[in-house]
Amino acid sequence: MNGAHSLIRTLVDAGVEVCFSNPGTSEMHFVAALDDVTGMRGVLGLFEGVVTGAADGYARIAGKPAATLLHLGPGLGNGMANLHNARRAHTPVVNIVGDHATYHKKYDAPLESDIDALVSPLRGWVRRSESTADVGADAAAAVAAAQDAPGRIATLILPADVSWGEGGEACAPIPPRPAHPVTRAGVERVADVLRSGDSIALLIGGEACREAGLRAASRLAEATGAKVFAETFPTRIERGAGLPAVERLGYLAEHVEYQLQGVQHVVLAGTRAPVSFFAYPGRASDLVPEGATVHTLADVDDDAAGALTDLAELVAADTEPVLAEPSRPEVPSGPLTPQNWVDVIGALLPDGAIIADEANTSGLMLPTATAGAPRHDVLTLTGGAIGYGPPVATGAAIAAPDRPVINLQSDGSALYTISALWTQARENLNVTTVLLNNSAYAILRMELQRVGAQTDGKKANELLDLSRPDLDFAKIAEGMGVPASRATTAEELAERFARALAEPGPHLIDAIVPPLL
Amino acid sequence: MNGAHSLIRTLVDAGVEVCFSNPGTSEMHFVAALDDVTGMRGVLGLFEGVVTGAADGYARIAGKPAATLLHLGPGLGNGMANLHNARRAHTPVVNIVGDHATYHKKYDAPLESDIDALVSPLRGWVRRSESTADVGADAAAAVAAAQDAPGRIATLILPADVSWGEGGEACAPIPPRPAHPVTRAGVERVADVLRSGDSIALLIGGEACREAGLRAASRLAEATGAKVFAETFPTRIERGAGLPAVERLGYLAEHVEYQLQGVQHVVLAGTRAPVSFFAYPGRASDLVPEGATVHTLADVDDDAAGALTDLAELVAADTEPVLAEPSRPEVPSGPLTPQNWVDVIGALLPDGAIIADEANTSGLMLPTATAGAPRHDVLTLTGGAIGYGPPVATGAAIAAPDRPVINLQSDGSALYTISALWTQARENLNVTTVLLNNSAYAILRMELQRVGAQTDGKKANELLDLSRPDLDFAKIAEGMGVPASRATTAEELAERFARALAEPGPHLIDAIVPPLL
Repeated sequence: MNGAHSLIRTLVDAGVEVCFSNPGTSEMHFVAALDDVTGMRGVLGLFEGVVTGAADGYARIAGKPAATLLHLGPGLGNGMANLHNARRAHTPVVNIVGDHATYHKKYDAPLESDIDALVSPLRGWVRRSESTADVGADAAAAVAAAQDAPGRIATLILPADVSWGEGGEACAPIPPRPAHPVTRAGVERVADVLRSGDSIALLIGGEACREAGLRAASRLAEATGAKVFAETFPTRIERGAGLPAVERLGYLAEHVEYQLQGVQHVVLAGTRAPVSFFAYPGRASDLVPEGATVHTLADVDDDAAGALTDLAELVAADTEPVLAEPSRPEVPSGPLTPQNWVDVIGALLPDGAIIADEANTSGLMLPTATAGAPRHDVLTLTGGAIGYGPPVATGAAIAAPDRPVINLQSDGSALYTISALWTQARENLNVTTVLLNNSAYAILRMELQRVGAQTDGKKANELLDLSRPDLDFAKIAEGMGVPASRATTAEELAERFARALAEPGPHLIDAIVPPLL
Repeated sequence: MNGAHSLIRTLVDAGVEVCFSNPGTSEMHFVAALDDVTGMRGVLGLFEGVVTGAADGYARIAGKPAATLLHLGPGLGNGMANLHNARRAHTPVVNIVGDHATYHKKYDAPLESDIDALVSPLRGWVRRSESTADVGADAAAAVAAAQDAPGRIATLILPADVSWGEGGEACAPIPPRPAHPVTRAGVERVADVLRSGDSIALLIGGEACREAGLRAASRLAEATGAKVFAETFPTRIERGAGLPAVERLGYLAEHVEYQLQGVQHVVLAGTRAPVSFFAYPGRASDLVPEGATVHTLADVDDDAAGALTDLAELVAADTEPVLAEPSRPEVPSGPLTPQNWVDVIGALLPDGAIIADEANTSGLMLPTATAGAPRHDVLTLTGGAIGYGPPVATGAAIAAPDRPVINLQSDGSALYTISALWTQARENLNVTTVLLNNSAYAILRMELQRVGAQTDGKKANELLDLSRPDLDFAKIAEGMGVPASRATTAEELAERFARALAEPGPHLIDAIVPPLL
């Protein structure tokens, strides 16, 4: 078998079943090998940001990595923004980057670039396969490294001649390192804090935002009076009727200051101490209240859900979690507003939905509207690199073909990775995109004021404005093979949203919503 | 003045008049300053690959740099592919990357990443402004560094607090370093080679592909029998009636081997010795014929056009260049083919056109069809990172508002940076995009065979196919505010192309052309 065969065989044996791909010439042997080795599904993305974002979304739902296939440094560059988000999400990704043949690199051909330097900001695992005989072992190591708790980007750089050379050997899977268990002593130290009677905020993140962690956190809150918050941008948070409703920390520093006001102890479980998303003149970057003590129950590579459960057994043994009751908003009416569109979602959200949320300012009222909806998962923009929504929704739908995937997507961000729609059409994925079209980078209009750079200037406003011309996302979607419609009222949105959910395959609704601010 | 004011003032004073921008929160003071400082035009791109590609196209035509404005590491990542192309084009670009406030970086907020590592593959000039007082001097140094011959990416990393801080000082322009003149002795050494009577190939690149270099090369060819070839992917090559017609080296290694067959000396003027674009099993990477001697008349940072002129004075003093006669193909008829669509372009190309050529396989017969057309410039894909065409056409049109810009664009590549169409509409640019829609990554179908990985496999073919669903580029363009039409015959293409050229503003023609192979 050649190197490509051994690579794919090893990946499949380690449970990697999907390869999101945007190949070039140096990856052609990998592409050909997909037909020779059974078990690997190749999914084409028409831009590498789609490929890497889809791998992120897939892993968030599947709980195991997909592979990517990227073409040299420029392909990796195009994929970096969504790899950045995946890194911040601690998502496992097996990131395969093709390179020139080993002997060809010295000629500095046009596509030659320093892939090793380019990949370093991901602070993940990186290996360059130096010989065909090593590819299998390198691939097995990559899959394990990607899944070592809490998860990371494992990049395997694959020179073309190493791929096409003969003498490859498939390698058996290597078990990844699970999350560190938190010691009894560590749990007891925090138990003492919780018993102190002081004002406490319990901040949860990572795996602790899944059911077990949420239930334990709710029991702790009930028993001790601690406030519980999820981190601002969780990788995956479970929500809805029958689960504890946990508020997320706000995006705005002033919101977090309000949420944590008066808190004496901040207890961290699977997340880090809160910091401001950006710096603002005259405002603190560190959002831990002055004088408060930070206690780490579980770091991001620890078993936070297990630690929370152990803690609940210590200080809330007889306390049940408080679960959200089923409750939905009425289907609203009238022209779309920042409030009523979220009520449409809350009113009609199907059971078991996956929401890929990149609604940004348009979505500020979404959590309330969906708190009592049927149980669902929400995926969020963990790294702040916009254009995550359409690809992550695509990957989530590949991972869970029987669940409805809903991409709540702001207009400005959508344009970065819009060709994900084509992949949704190609793969006939059940993704409904609600495109929140307010014809602006509305968040930047707000930020322009928050950083104290308020201006009524024409040039500045031009750079934050998405009108002249208005974007017609229904036409763009249709051009990419996705059936689309337009909604300007809540009734229209409700009708089109229900229809999109009822029909198989992808749909897009261009929802004309005024800016929140 | 604050740091942003001093930055923009310094850029404008140094002749930088356009800033292609995709800002975020950390760049808001820069954005606000655009209204406070006169002379800088902000042009919004909806994706950073559009921003960087536009800066490349602008500089290729304007002969001086534009600035970019990018948001942190992810914004730079999105812009890297077209910066790679600009690097290979030796295009001057003042690449401004916003960063978190200096004191905020240690908090590792979600958008924090290692910008310095990410930028290093560009092998350009990099500086991080450490204090507001330095910004002006840093900016002046960046503009000079960008323009030091032969041109490069000069990246200025601008922390938010350095931008918003007071105490900025504008700085006077610093003269860039011009191209090194080639010594008399160096020219004479090559003159001896040309007089030898041996078989000689003269390869020209960079500035030597402009009129002065072309005329000198043609005189040398006439006087000595040397064959002249332009490099495979010139940054900007002048063509058409009244100029010497110079053949470009081929993309395929086997084509170059044919072009250089029997050559005993390869003389380089502003380019490097030819190498294969990719490695192929059993084929050489170095395309200099075996036994041939390579002579460097002028390196890429030397004055190649001047050296060629000096050389022509020595060995071709009495020889005139051979200039292409005006000649156009007939307007063809019938269903579009890889041959007749280029004849439509050749028949109707307006005087003074700028062609941004990313037609790839569809464009192989373009040079012949346009050789006798009115004088025009052709810009090419210098670095092989696809998605260069729409942004480069956008930037070229900003640089030359009175010239018709024609983007000959393959379908697969178009999707990487398709939102450039919106910027063309926003700025009402005279760009006509002829979208060569063959529903495939046709070049990869060819490459799959060339690398010896031939397969009839379904999975492999899926990854090279752009149908199911077909992309409707007319709808996509209309969704972005660009009037669009569709052509399936040569008559339709001719009618629509002529109409697009006659009407102001951007247009797109979705030309349904079968694959060449």
